[in-house]
Amino acid sequence: MKTTWIREIKGNSPFSPVHFLAFLSLSVTNRCAGLVGVREAQGHSLDLRTTLTLTPGGARLELDLPEVEIQQAWPLQDVEALWERLGRPGEKCAAPLTEAQVAQVRDFLGLPEDPPGGPRGLALLSFFQLYLAILPRPVPATLRVTSQLPTGAGLGSSAAYAVCLSAALLRLAERGSAPDSVPSAEVSGGLSLKEVSGWAFRSEQIVHGTPSGIDNSICTYGGAVSFKAGCCSPLGAPPLRVLLVNTRVPRSTKALVAAVGARRSRLPEVVEPVLDAMDALAERALQTLSELSSAASPQQQDEAYAALHELVDINQALLASLGVSHASLERLVGVAAAHGLHAKLTGAGGGGLGMVVLGRDTAPEAVDKCRGELEAQGYQVWQTTLGAPGLTFH
Amino acid sequence: MKTTWIREIKGNSPFSPVHFLAFLSLSVTNRCAGLVGVREAQGHSLDLRTTLTLTPGGARLELDLPEVEIQQAWPLQDVEALWERLGRPGEKCAAPLTEAQVAQVRDFLGLPEDPPGGPRGLALLSFFQLYLAILPRPVPATLRVTSQLPTGAGLGSSAAYAVCLSAALLRLAERGSAPDSVPSAEVSGGLSLKEVSGWAFRSEQIVHGTPSGIDNSICTYGGAVSFKAGCCSPLGAPPLRVLLVNTRVPRSTKALVAAVGARRSRLPEVVEPVLDAMDALAERALQTLSELSSAASPQQQDEAYAALHELVDINQALLASLGVSHASLERLVGVAAAHGLHAKLTGAGGGGLGMVVLGRDTAPEAVDKCRGELEAQGYQVWQTTLGAPGLTFH
Repeated sequence: MKTTWIREIKGNSPFSPVHFLAFLSLSVTNRCAGLVGVREAQGHSLDLRTTLTLTPGGARLELDLPEVEIQQAWPLQDVEALWERLGRPGEKCAAPLTEAQVAQVRDFLGLPEDPPGGPRGLALLSFFQLYLAILPRPVPATLRVTSQLPTGAGLGSSAAYAVCLSAALLRLAERGSAPDSVPSAEVSGGLSLKEVSGWAFRSEQIVHGTPSGIDNSICTYGGAVSFKAGCCSPLGAPPLRVLLVNTRVPRSTKALVAAVGARRSRLPEVVEPVLDAMDALAERALQTLSELSSAASPQQQDEAYAALHELVDINQALLASLGVSHASLERLVGVAAAHGLHAKLTGAGGGGLGMVVLGRDTAPEAVDKCRGELEAQGYQVWQTTLGAPGLTFH
Repeated sequence: MKTTWIREIKGNSPFSPVHFLAFLSLSVTNRCAGLVGVREAQGHSLDLRTTLTLTPGGARLELDLPEVEIQQAWPLQDVEALWERLGRPGEKCAAPLTEAQVAQVRDFLGLPEDPPGGPRGLALLSFFQLYLAILPRPVPATLRVTSQLPTGAGLGSSAAYAVCLSAALLRLAERGSAPDSVPSAEVSGGLSLKEVSGWAFRSEQIVHGTPSGIDNSICTYGGAVSFKAGCCSPLGAPPLRVLLVNTRVPRSTKALVAAVGARRSRLPEVVEPVLDAMDALAERALQTLSELSSAASPQQQDEAYAALHELVDINQALLASLGVSHASLERLVGVAAAHGLHAKLTGAGGGGLGMVVLGRDTAPEAVDKCRGELEAQGYQVWQTTLGAPGLTFH
């Protein structure tokens, strides 16, 4: 095994700074019901990193995920027996598992059919599906994944996990192959980023049903990604300083999606123009981010930040008009406003996370005071940066 | 003088329950600038009454307005001299004063040209303009106007004042004429309501520059009034119980109008669809109020109230997206929501007033607790009813 030099693979979290993982999530998860259509969105990667440490060798396959309390090992011969039973899937052409094969894996792991055992069950199932499909044959290894991201908060922790797993397993599958001699944006550490993102998408399908593809793209490529008509493309957006704020209010994306869908059916003549306004706002946010990138002077930067902050405010109000805000998010917005700062919800809304988008020269005292007040009110706050690198190898 | 039997004339306050004196005010005052067009709105009268007591006779003309600290009397001969200087305006045909005549009245009252001395100056000027234009010749009288309405809070206190004055002066002008023998919706206490409302509109023009006509119409006719394309028509809407809440935050309608106009120029593709959504919402609110009127069972009423409350929530969020909310209004909305109630701003926003729209069977404890909490936070709260009668005589 020559892959010991790949010790860590970091995947970044996707994140939406101005438009709408909120809106996006609602759109996407509800696509089947046709209630809320997928429109467009932007995502930024978040500098809270997920780290996978891959240690090939030994006699077992071991998965260690302290955040979801998984530390489990399988004798390699058991994994090989499963691999035989499934018809040696990875040996053929790194094809995704079929429905029937996934059912067999679920049995092997002792997981219930639907839902497959909560976040722990989904994490195990994602891992095995990728392991069995990507590797040409079972190999012993220990994979340990830790994350600075809170799980289940709408920050794309599952996508970051899937990107790390895909990259590590693709590396394990290619053991011995030399890193690509021509570095390009599409290749990192000898791996095709497109392939990494594609496998992560498969994993996301297990966790989310109908993911948009934006989360895995952002985690893979980093920076900012524009999502439109089902396609993700990287954006040249600048890093944005934010306070990421956890309301600690559990959200039910499913219930929120249903409520927005119901409001849309009830009041189409009100909700449709609001969605139009949000689309236009997303487009304008793209433009503003690009102006921020190319701003030549601090004054131009400040102007672009002022424009961005106005979009943040409007976005939050429009999301509230759809019914996806929450008292805890409105309080967050109020605390930020009291310090002259601009906040919006992120993720699906209805609790979960919000963020305060800072400016070039936001007074550190205002940020500290805002953060202190939020923490005193029971919020969890991280000061971080959007637009960080995607997949990196160490 | 046979008019001693007209002791009191009550004018009601206009009020907007679902759509938007907020939006309306912005539209109207900004019409000249062409930034925000007049669209449509509804207004409800508010059961906080303004009372005028007319006492004809004596040797003076006396005006007593305790709310704006006016208690002033003019010897009748001074008023007669002014009347001569102006070319005996009222003697002709109850025509409005010309600009030049208004300037002479201002001089007589010792008021500065622009602005003519704040609320006190405007109240004096309105009174004299109506007195000199409506009466066929100066007659001695004492007029005392008191109000349950806060002044300058966007509740139409100036319109209620103008309606009372117009009715009293028209009555004084017709001294001796018998009340109309055929009562109709257009006639009250022998006066044409249309004429009362028309004169009140003239007075509103002095105070507001470009009033929409909705405030004077609601104060005159009572109930609910629909305003569309410049025309007011009475609506068959049911009375609505509300908590009317004064944030005690002074608002600057002018600054708000300018800010909305600027946002609209900056982000037309975002703001125009929001205005479309608000128009659709106003239309839907009309429909819901009519359903509420015709609801045959408590269950149907509750359904209509639920629909109305949803519209209140959406309306507030859309107003916030235009930038006309305020921290004090958002806190009010938050307190109401914490008690399961629905609140929105009214008037121009940016402070001023908000209201909590109650339902058929809103639990009295929830209302009391909400009210208590608001008062503890420094808000001023009235529990009242929208859709009260307009002009009445006692």
